Amino acid sequence: MAGVQEYVDAHRGDALEELKDLLSIPSVSTDPARRDDVQRCAEWVHGRLESMGLAAEICPTDGHPVVYAEHIIDASRPTVLVYGHYDVQPPDPLDAWRHGPFSPTVEGDFIVARGATDDKGQLYALVKGIEAAQEVFGTLPVNVKLLIEGEEEIGSTHLTPFIRAQKERLKSDIVVISDSSQYARDVPAITYGLKGICYLEVVVRGPKQDLHSGSFGGSVANPANVLTRMIAACQGPFGQVGIPGFYDDVRDLEAWEREAFAELNFDEDAFRQDMGVPKLFGEDGFSSLERRWARPTLDVNGLISGFTGEGAKTVIPCEARAKFSMRLVPDQDPEKIRDLVTDFLLEVAPDSVNVEVVDHHGTRPVLVPRDGKPIQAAEHALAKGFGRKPVYIREGGSIPVVNTFQEELGVGSLLIGLGLPDDGAHGPNEKFCIADYYRGMVTMAHFLEAMAAS
Amino acid sequence: MAGVQEYVDAHRGDALEELKDLLSIPSVSTDPARRDDVQRCAEWVHGRLESMGLAAEICPTDGHPVVYAEHIIDASRPTVLVYGHYDVQPPDPLDAWRHGPFSPTVEGDFIVARGATDDKGQLYALVKGIEAAQEVFGTLPVNVKLLIEGEEEIGSTHLTPFIRAQKERLKSDIVVISDSSQYARDVPAITYGLKGICYLEVVVRGPKQDLHSGSFGGSVANPANVLTRMIAACQGPFGQVGIPGFYDDVRDLEAWEREAFAELNFDEDAFRQDMGVPKLFGEDGFSSLERRWARPTLDVNGLISGFTGEGAKTVIPCEARAKFSMRLVPDQDPEKIRDLVTDFLLEVAPDSVNVEVVDHHGTRPVLVPRDGKPIQAAEHALAKGFGRKPVYIREGGSIPVVNTFQEELGVGSLLIGLGLPDDGAHGPNEKFCIADYYRGMVTMAHFLEAMAAS
Repeated sequence: MAGVQEYVDAHRGDALEELKDLLSIPSVSTDPARRDDVQRCAEWVHGRLESMGLAAEICPTDGHPVVYAEHIIDASRPTVLVYGHYDVQPPDPLDAWRHGPFSPTVEGDFIVARGATDDKGQLYALVKGIEAAQEVFGTLPVNVKLLIEGEEEIGSTHLTPFIRAQKERLKSDIVVISDSSQYARDVPAITYGLKGICYLEVVVRGPKQDLHSGSFGGSVANPANVLTRMIAACQGPFGQVGIPGFYDDVRDLEAWEREAFAELNFDEDAFRQDMGVPKLFGEDGFSSLERRWARPTLDVNGLISGFTGEGAKTVIPCEARAKFSMRLVPDQDPEKIRDLVTDFLLEVAPDSVNVEVVDHHGTRPVLVPRDGKPIQAAEHALAKGFGRKPVYIREGGSIPVVNTFQEELGVGSLLIGLGLPDDGAHGPNEKFCIADYYRGMVTMAHFLEAMAAS
Repeated sequence: MAGVQEYVDAHRGDALEELKDLLSIPSVSTDPARRDDVQRCAEWVHGRLESMGLAAEICPTDGHPVVYAEHIIDASRPTVLVYGHYDVQPPDPLDAWRHGPFSPTVEGDFIVARGATDDKGQLYALVKGIEAAQEVFGTLPVNVKLLIEGEEEIGSTHLTPFIRAQKERLKSDIVVISDSSQYARDVPAITYGLKGICYLEVVVRGPKQDLHSGSFGGSVANPANVLTRMIAACQGPFGQVGIPGFYDDVRDLEAWEREAFAELNFDEDAFRQDMGVPKLFGEDGFSSLERRWARPTLDVNGLISGFTGEGAKTVIPCEARAKFSMRLVPDQDPEKIRDLVTDFLLEVAPDSVNVEVVDHHGTRPVLVPRDGKPIQAAEHALAKGFGRKPVYIREGGSIPVVNTFQEELGVGSLLIGLGLPDDGAHGPNEKFCIADYYRGMVTMAHFLEAMAAS
């Protein structure tokens, strides 16, 4: 029996052609004019899964359909659930592309097209890895389920109800998601932590209409003045969040994490230059990676009040608004933080204005235990696929579906990013490294094999 | 010889008809389509002044013309310069008017039309007062000059160069301006103080583009966070401005001023309700009138940064801007304040962002000595015209032309508002009290007479 690597090497051409077919379907989920293309993409994915011998179906939702497939070889064996999405972002700005966004083109080591890395290329590497396992091992080593949605780029609106309705069917031991990045080129990574988020908006309302700041200045509280003080009060010294109690549930970085991050030799100055800032900033006593991956933050995302056109206008604005969000780390709870921050804002606000705090959304932080079997299997598989052991990284963003799986199914997720940090997801000339596509296939086949081992 | 009052009473009808003629000319200075109407209005005013026997001319500028007129009875006598403007604001929104904005209509005690109070009605009361003095006294008691511009509502762009070029011709002992309000109905007032202004904009720039707040939050200074802290730092406790040195040159209210303001029995609660705020606000130890008229302030006029649409977007904005202005009182200097505030902002800004402070404009505060001859003459004249002594008030706004007269001609201004606080200048159904129009005429004739007394 030939090994996984040999099998994948022997089938490179077909695998690339199939990916090109998938990338040529303009499945832009946000564009009503692309509705038929999104449906066609779901059918294409469904067809491929069916041809692999999986029990596949296209499940309608109130939006774009979910493609579901499974192959249960033995109910007593472990079950791996693959999550991915077949929809893509709009390709705008079109004239920034070197060729048609839906005319996938090989340029050197990369395939360039909308969806190349996000998420068609990464997802299809997992699919082809399942196929490779079937072919190489004669049968799948474990049970496999695939949940592939068509609305990830528009907020996965219909996925949560779908998961909630299909709890029994989706039961599994681990979810595998490849929709992110390696740490760097040729440095595979397991993302074992995600930040949560608590996104609020504070609205300060003062006089019933904008006032002449000459005639009334100094006698009526200015909502924009008040807002700046309230947001400033949320910020503490030394780069910290200043809201009392905010850090109460923060789990400290463990010694191995700080060591592991330090070993990545992150280039702080290159990062500074890349960001285009005169100096980096952040919480005292932490490196940039620690700040980005494992420390909670508070960022104003938007400010608006009064006159914002060219020149000068002398108004006391009747209203001022700030959108701001806190990125949370284990074991912070978004609802507890929301209440804490809301109470704080209402407390610091003077009684000369009216204040409203709007809750936009919240997501819990995620931390995958490093010692579970799936993570060990992934470490082994990535080493096989990429020729070197993965590094362990965390990510500052949130992936809400990971929380949905945890909360609705009680199952953890394994985040194995196959992309590169500069793949340009959502941008023009989005790309995916073709070698990483094949490496992903090899990795997935070995992962399934490793999950079968007791 | 009949008195001034008798003369004005006898000529009410004509005076009102003339005002209606003036108000029916749509001299909207900002509207290019009204260019000919603005010119026609200048000609109308010029014609009236000429028919009164004044040496009048229409002086072209690079914008709308200035109407200038004078009558020098004796170069050794005092000279009164009247300033006003014949242009008006646009009448929008048109459908909020009860009748055509340029179809002046008597409604009860008022004449309703665009420009009724601002400034045609008030200005023409002074003109008719000069005419009354001529008729009643046989000749003008003092020399009179009139400077009537057509660009007040669009920033008086061409007036300063005109004044600078005509210094000798405009030489005078006092400027009289009626382009504001009485304190309240039947409570005539002399506005003896105006606030100055220093209008700045601070721009905080961070990363070279908006960043994902999940991936980069906590490692790069957020310009919107920084901006709120900087603006908050400008605010002190107890409603004060918090910039060190800001109050250094502030002249304290004199005892007579605080007494005079207190005697006005300003209704704080009615004011609060009128503003629509839950509670009034301001510097500790001062009344609302003192805060509005005689204490310096700092108001944010506009804030903009990042995402300001509906919903939530998780960006670290690359830039944040605040427009803000300080209202200044004697003896604060706008340039000194600009430098003080700019230095303060640059000092409190962290070195992880770039900060730019833009100077929009500045105007000096004005305080007219209460013991000058013109102000005594005005007090006497207002008592004659309105049947009660005027109150002394200050105003929180700035009138830049007052500074121009002071700086270019070295002459002070006397602000005798004939309007009412609720006349609705710049709004629909702008009005002017007809009785006040006649009272203004009587006042002006008596003022000229009083200025002639040694």
